[in-house]
Amino acid sequence: MTATQTTTTTAVSPIPESEYKVKDLNLADFGRKEIELAEVEMPGLMASREEMGHKKPLAGAKVMGSLHMTIQTAVLIETLKELGADIRWCSCNIFSTQDHAASAVVAKGTASVFAWKAETLEEYWWCTNRALTWPDGSGPDIIVDDGGDATMLIHEGFKAEMAYEKDGTLPDPESTDNAEFKCVLTTIRDGLKTNPKRFRNMVDKMVGVSEETTTGVHRLIERARDGTLLFPAINVNDCVTKSKFDNVYGCRHSLPDGIMRATDVMLAGKTVMICGYGDVGKGSAHAMKAAGARCLVAEIDPICALQATMEGFQVARLEDVLSEVDIVITATGNKDIVLLKHMEKMKNNAIVGNIGHFDNEIDIAGLEAYDGIKKVEIKPQVHRWQFPDGHGIIMLAEGRLLNLGCATGHPSFVMSCSFTNQILAQVELWENRSSGKYENNVYILPKVLDEKVARLHLKHLNAKLTELSTDQAEYIGVNAIGPFKPETYRY
Amino acid sequence: MTATQTTTTTAVSPIPESEYKVKDLNLADFGRKEIELAEVEMPGLMASREEMGHKKPLAGAKVMGSLHMTIQTAVLIETLKELGADIRWCSCNIFSTQDHAASAVVAKGTASVFAWKAETLEEYWWCTNRALTWPDGSGPDIIVDDGGDATMLIHEGFKAEMAYEKDGTLPDPESTDNAEFKCVLTTIRDGLKTNPKRFRNMVDKMVGVSEETTTGVHRLIERARDGTLLFPAINVNDCVTKSKFDNVYGCRHSLPDGIMRATDVMLAGKTVMICGYGDVGKGSAHAMKAAGARCLVAEIDPICALQATMEGFQVARLEDVLSEVDIVITATGNKDIVLLKHMEKMKNNAIVGNIGHFDNEIDIAGLEAYDGIKKVEIKPQVHRWQFPDGHGIIMLAEGRLLNLGCATGHPSFVMSCSFTNQILAQVELWENRSSGKYENNVYILPKVLDEKVARLHLKHLNAKLTELSTDQAEYIGVNAIGPFKPETYRY
Amino acid sequence: MTATQTTTTTAVSPIPESEYKVKDLNLADFGRKEIELAEVEMPGLMASREEMGHKKPLAGAKVMGSLHMTIQTAVLIETLKELGADIRWCSCNIFSTQDHAASAVVAKGTASVFAWKAETLEEYWWCTNRALTWPDGSGPDIIVDDGGDATMLIHEGFKAEMAYEKDGTLPDPESTDNAEFKCVLTTIRDGLKTNPKRFRNMVDKMVGVSEETTTGVHRLIERARDGTLLFPAINVNDCVTKSKFDNVYGCRHSLPDGIMRATDVMLAGKTVMICGYGDVGKGSAHAMKAAGARCLVAEIDPICALQATMEGFQVARLEDVLSEVDIVITATGNKDIVLLKHMEKMKNNAIVGNIGHFDNEIDIAGLEAYDGIKKVEIKPQVHRWQFPDGHGIIMLAEGRLLNLGCATGHPSFVMSCSFTNQILAQVELWENRSSGKYENNVYILPKVLDEKVARLHLKHLNAKLTELSTDQAEYIGVNAIGPFKPETYRY
Amino acid sequence: MTATQTTTTTAVSPIPESEYKVKDLNLADFGRKEIELAEVEMPGLMASREEMGHKKPLAGAKVMGSLHMTIQTAVLIETLKELGADIRWCSCNIFSTQDHAASAVVAKGTASVFAWKAETLEEYWWCTNRALTWPDGSGPDIIVDDGGDATMLIHEGFKAEMAYEKDGTLPDPESTDNAEFKCVLTTIRDGLKTNPKRFRNMVDKMVGVSEETTTGVHRLIERARDGTLLFPAINVNDCVTKSKFDNVYGCRHSLPDGIMRATDVMLAGKTVMICGYGDVGKGSAHAMKAAGARCLVAEIDPICALQATMEGFQVARLEDVLSEVDIVITATGNKDIVLLKHMEKMKNNAIVGNIGHFDNEIDIAGLEAYDGIKKVEIKPQVHRWQFPDGHGIIMLAEGRLLNLGCATGHPSFVMSCSFTNQILAQVELWENRSSGKYENNVYILPKVLDEKVARLHLKHLNAKLTELSTDQAEYIGVNAIGPFKPETYRY
Repeated sequence: MTATQTTTTTAVSPIPESEYKVKDLNLADFGRKEIELAEVEMPGLMASREEMGHKKPLAGAKVMGSLHMTIQTAVLIETLKELGADIRWCSCNIFSTQDHAASAVVAKGTASVFAWKAETLEEYWWCTNRALTWPDGSGPDIIVDDGGDATMLIHEGFKAEMAYEKDGTLPDPESTDNAEFKCVLTTIRDGLKTNPKRFRNMVDKMVGVSEETTTGVHRLIERARDGTLLFPAINVNDCVTKSKFDNVYGCRHSLPDGIMRATDVMLAGKTVMICGYGDVGKGSAHAMKAAGARCLVAEIDPICALQATMEGFQVARLEDVLSEVDIVITATGNKDIVLLKHMEKMKNNAIVGNIGHFDNEIDIAGLEAYDGIKKVEIKPQVHRWQFPDGHGIIMLAEGRLLNLGCATGHPSFVMSCSFTNQILAQVELWENRSSGKYENNVYILPKVLDEKVARLHLKHLNAKLTELSTDQAEYIGVNAIGPFKPETYRY
Repeated sequence: MTATQTTTTTAVSPIPESEYKVKDLNLADFGRKEIELAEVEMPGLMASREEMGHKKPLAGAKVMGSLHMTIQTAVLIETLKELGADIRWCSCNIFSTQDHAASAVVAKGTASVFAWKAETLEEYWWCTNRALTWPDGSGPDIIVDDGGDATMLIHEGFKAEMAYEKDGTLPDPESTDNAEFKCVLTTIRDGLKTNPKRFRNMVDKMVGVSEETTTGVHRLIERARDGTLLFPAINVNDCVTKSKFDNVYGCRHSLPDGIMRATDVMLAGKTVMICGYGDVGKGSAHAMKAAGARCLVAEIDPICALQATMEGFQVARLEDVLSEVDIVITATGNKDIVLLKHMEKMKNNAIVGNIGHFDNEIDIAGLEAYDGIKKVEIKPQVHRWQFPDGHGIIMLAEGRLLNLGCATGHPSFVMSCSFTNQILAQVELWENRSSGKYENNVYILPKVLDEKVARLHLKHLNAKLTELSTDQAEYIGVNAIGPFKPETYRY
Repeated sequence: MTATQTTTTTAVSPIPESEYKVKDLNLADFGRKEIELAEVEMPGLMASREEMGHKKPLAGAKVMGSLHMTIQTAVLIETLKELGADIRWCSCNIFSTQDHAASAVVAKGTASVFAWKAETLEEYWWCTNRALTWPDGSGPDIIVDDGGDATMLIHEGFKAEMAYEKDGTLPDPESTDNAEFKCVLTTIRDGLKTNPKRFRNMVDKMVGVSEETTTGVHRLIERARDGTLLFPAINVNDCVTKSKFDNVYGCRHSLPDGIMRATDVMLAGKTVMICGYGDVGKGSAHAMKAAGARCLVAEIDPICALQATMEGFQVARLEDVLSEVDIVITATGNKDIVLLKHMEKMKNNAIVGNIGHFDNEIDIAGLEAYDGIKKVEIKPQVHRWQFPDGHGIIMLAEGRLLNLGCATGHPSFVMSCSFTNQILAQVELWENRSSGKYENNVYILPKVLDEKVARLHLKHLNAKLTELSTDQAEYIGVNAIGPFKPETYRY
Repeated sequence: MTATQTTTTTAVSPIPESEYKVKDLNLADFGRKEIELAEVEMPGLMASREEMGHKKPLAGAKVMGSLHMTIQTAVLIETLKELGADIRWCSCNIFSTQDHAASAVVAKGTASVFAWKAETLEEYWWCTNRALTWPDGSGPDIIVDDGGDATMLIHEGFKAEMAYEKDGTLPDPESTDNAEFKCVLTTIRDGLKTNPKRFRNMVDKMVGVSEETTTGVHRLIERARDGTLLFPAINVNDCVTKSKFDNVYGCRHSLPDGIMRATDVMLAGKTVMICGYGDVGKGSAHAMKAAGARCLVAEIDPICALQATMEGFQVARLEDVLSEVDIVITATGNKDIVLLKHMEKMKNNAIVGNIGHFDNEIDIAGLEAYDGIKKVEIKPQVHRWQFPDGHGIIMLAEGRLLNLGCATGHPSFVMSCSFTNQILAQVELWENRSSGKYENNVYILPKVLDEKVARLHLKHLNAKLTELSTDQAEYIGVNAIGPFKPETYRY
């Protein structure tokens, strides 16, 4: 299906109202138009539909997704649908839903969606829980996870059920200071009495999860190492066509996009500090340099730091350059990067934002507790925090992912790479649901699939691959159709 | 005044309702916050307030402006006010007004404003006419013009009055096919009977105009050459700190900004054709290259074309690369650049936009007249034109300036350079209103003022200038404090 | 020792004349000066001297090296010496010796060197054989190998001795068409009669080899897989601080350097095809783009090809763009990349060169056999091959590594990264000579050493590392002093 | 003539030995091969030969050139010859002659040449004087000057003759401290007695000079202003195809080329200070950034400084960053830029070089006079100056133009632009020798010729120009075949 052939897609929703919650179904038409445009930019997903659509390889699979409910995700969802899946979805971030995307998916009857922009934490976990619960009370067969929240809820639910069965212990939301974990425990506790086997039943039939992010994979690997992982997991994050594309090139696109939409500030001539020079930091720093900024990098890893120097970035510590920097962006995947003591000393109207993972890269809590500080909303997702001395900083997206909060996240094309890996992972899990191929461990997709994902995206860019002769393939000891590199190859 | 010290700026408007027309005064608060942020990024204007504010050099001057009514322009207007001017304003483009900016200016009582986003042509010329008419019926002393529409209305009005006086001829709107010129003639005709000397009176006391753009300057020079220019003009466009900054770096910022906001398309990997490699084209092409696109350039001038090759751009003709290009941007200042015959053959969903001057760079009229074509609005300022064969193109901002239509135009910092030149030009004109220094001709600001504008913007970027010793100054034959270069220097 | 403290370094050579063969000892003074400059640029090696010099960890070790005998290698050799080694050296490429470097090493008495620029194949293998033979007839304990020629000679010698012992079979140079392998067989055959156990004795006491290149590692892994590897090997090539620095940034420097020294051609405006977009190709393509060329890329691997598109390179097949390209560079590590059928159709004076590994990336043999072709030497390492129709191509370095043949190879700083890994590998092998830690397999250096190498190079570039707090380290599950990344991290 | 058709070019020189002085005629063959390669890269000159060769527009003209005697200049000289000129040549810099180029020109009989690499000052002025003196004692009709030395000698000679005639005053070399001016006065004095009217005769018949450089033009404009200019001058330097190409792109190529050939230092990761951000500085700074260096800029002109910030360069004062910079390059055209007080505090082995005009940009004299300093030649044109405290700096090309001293100057293609302007200027002067068109003033070539020069270079780069329709040309008020821009356009 190309963008030009669709007609009355939003006619009547076959999804009953109790089975979705989005902001406004009237946004569906606008969402549908954007989905159709995005389809042209997501050749990997469209090729998957063409190649596998008629075979319905996901027929019978109940797929739950916890992943930013954007236009691009809508194309992913509709591809899963085309492959035969029965789908429920929620977002993995309280700010990242694009309401018109959510509405369009519901209006077309593609999936049950529970997501809207700017959820409260309570609402967020309510949505996640609802997305995990099919009308008949059962749970999903396979999960598409981003950051691991759905997986975490199941694991915590499972643990709570075991404790409850053992001695009637109920999860105690007061036992934690973490506002988010309070919600998780409340959600589990409230369900426990009605159905004390719900999560165990879910786990029993769970085929597996495919995880999108570094953070989520990190959590999965810890569980696998500890022996507590309850079902197989495919690490989509570490596909080359994910981590070296979405992370690098996605951020190179969406960092300046987010800053510009939020602040309209001229990037040229500014001094920018990028904290972290991993894949996200690499994309971010190059974007700032490309825009004419003077870009500095903060790093803890000497190898990444040396890479930064080779690209002409000055490697410095944040505390040493506070009087110079106009923009500070965190891209570390760690916590406590931009601290109060930094923000106090920044230039007036210095811009602070995060493109890493969680909002704890920046000490938002510290700001909120600061005596005499004022928080003024310039516009949604853009706040000026004014210190008592009168100078202020501009905080983007409340310290959460600024590219999703202040712009529309990564563009369709790069998400098509990531999401085509998701499709391949979901099919792989489902087709092997009884093969015993996957144990409760974390797996990588085979390189040949990674290469396939790349291949599906080249034609759209007019790229023409050279082909190996048999003779050449033999000479370097590979198969002429790939895979072409050893597993350890770094790209 | 810094952003942090302002308080209740929008209290009560002292401007009577008959003296402004904006979309919604409730937007004033939001506009005020953005104005305060912009002030920090416009050091040249703020320094002008500080340096000249107490002297009120524009006291007594009635200043009319016809220039995109944006947040940055609001800072310009409020600087003119601070210098003592009595101000009326309209926009110079039907789509370029930022409604919150217009409202904030009115709410603070700074100026009478007649501007809103998406005016009709009739409304546009009504606004221009109203901005030219003070409550007592008189006209402005000095004009800030962008594209020359205000200047043109006065000249056409003057001409019509002479013809009317001679033999009672009235302008005939039916005498032209040009929709815009029809409005001009109607406006003049309708006023002619009530006040047949209005424009002549206006011209009699007119001190001069300062013009912002290449196109406007081109018109002024033609009038000066023909001996029909009715008052002195200062060419602000050709200040180095305007043409080599606003045009180059402004567009380098706002072209990707506009494309990203409008389409969310990934620029990396795309093939982009920039038509025109003047200052605007240079900024545009470098922006696309910096974003990871493969960028081609079309040029008619062999010198500019050779510059493009030296920067690694393939120089080609649009018609030869239609099957390859994903994005086509016009930046020529000429007409008939992207024609129907081109658009018919482009790839499906190829993006077409204009960052030159007028919408006639792209054959919008041809699209509208195309048999069987469908125009679908994706969202405001983004339309898909679908040809009968099913393929379509995405047109940005209806072929008008996409950076203003789809984003917020140039960022504050670069506009501060341009607008500080405007301030200097306005003061220069007003202070010399009786000196006889300026005849009915087109003048350039002295280089020393151009250098001053640059100087006022360096500190904000932590830049430290080196100083010439007397000995060195003598050696190269300049004054140690500038100007440093001959008039012909190209920068 | 810093460059400024050295005095009469070349006084008298303690190495007897029979124990070295270099072009001209009079070049030693010039070589010494360049070595002293290079030392400042090789902080990793100098830090190794400082850290380990007094402990002489290589005392007692006989180290043989087969690695381009350049100024940078001289600093490596003198570092090995400072650590206590007894050293013999040859080059691994007939053209890559810098005669002044070889002479300086000999004149100072650091090592026995057998190397000069432009050896014949016979001379090359004579040199390799001499470097493997200590005056007492014994062989080395450890080897620094580049491309695996020294390792290959030992393995082939060992195989031949076994065959000879079995049934008196002598290697037959006539059994192969490969000119180089003929020399290998001749060398072995000629020595076999005098000492039929020479290579077996060598293998018996051999502690191991550290290999510098992709190609050499590839050969080692094949041997290990086949069970024919005769001693342990450390793969230095795949240290991040080697492959992502030397290969990428080294080539980014030395490719334009080589082309410019050889041809003085202006790179800006030219159309360049880089064949291969691995690490070497990435560095090469970015260098050409940075110089203002329009750069195209040919690739077989869809992932690397997609990376190229994301950086704005047009991905094409060589045969499709022959009429456009001015410069073609091979960077594949494969053979038969630029064929006669390509060169026949190139533009007049198109430049062809190789920065991959072997000269068989370009069909030099095909040129030589071409009927009616003329080969004109413009200057050493730069030839014009003129086809009978009058058009010609400019071949750099006879199709061998152009950065070594036409310039001076990679610069000192990046080689310091690679060579510090070599030092660590040599010490690791020697210190574990009796520990049983290493079997006859191929090993990677632990990541913590890789990070150490990076760390030793940061200070020279004024880079300041940020430090992890214990809390942060725990949060991401690493040790606060590293290693910081999982083994699979791609950088 | 293409490179492939030349045959026995060096057979026998028709120039008698008294009429040239070059290093070694045996270098002619090598020079000829390089000239033939350069011809392919100099399409503007070759097109001039084709277009005008048969008309011999310079027949009868005695042309004297004082311009770096390089391979590219050889192609210029042979183009002048092809157009009919009678030519004598010298270099305009004691280090810039390429001996093989000089020899090839002599061996072919093209021109009388007096030039070799590394002349003394006395030899330099002897050469200049000889180049100005035809065998019959007469002088040139037209001059190609670079820096104005030939023009200066004539003007000083003329002045001296007037003084001598008046009262017998002879120039006194002891009257000046300037070593170079001493030579000028000596040369004039020594000739004065034999022929006291020589320079006056020369001036009488002199048609004019075309000057290549900013410095030379500066001197000419001063003379014209003072009324002392003795013949017409064409300012070739300010052709757009000269100043925005040779200065910018030529230096962008030859600065890294010179540094790499001289020092082999890795540019990536280094901190570089470019002093001056005019055209030469722009090219230089972009080259350093492109090579992966962190580049800073020092400027006195606020406009150029602001341009530097917009490109991401930190604008700083040299004295503030001495502890950070690894490489300092002067590109100012002024004197006293890098002073002793700077060099004393630089990092050990910091590299210092000049790509501006004269060696007085760096205080070489100060170094020479420094108590206890040691100067060690690493290789020709590369010296280490070691301060008494042991640290040293690496000085390139003795502070003279490093791209000419350490590499081969600008590449052929960009020189073809400059030199095609020279050809057009020479023809223009000669064809108007009796027309009275040119007075004793400084003239610019008409823009249409500038555009022609660009046009002649586009085809070689596969660039295809778009053509204006008559309608479009009218719309923007230009002729459809150009010129396309007003005189003040800055490109």
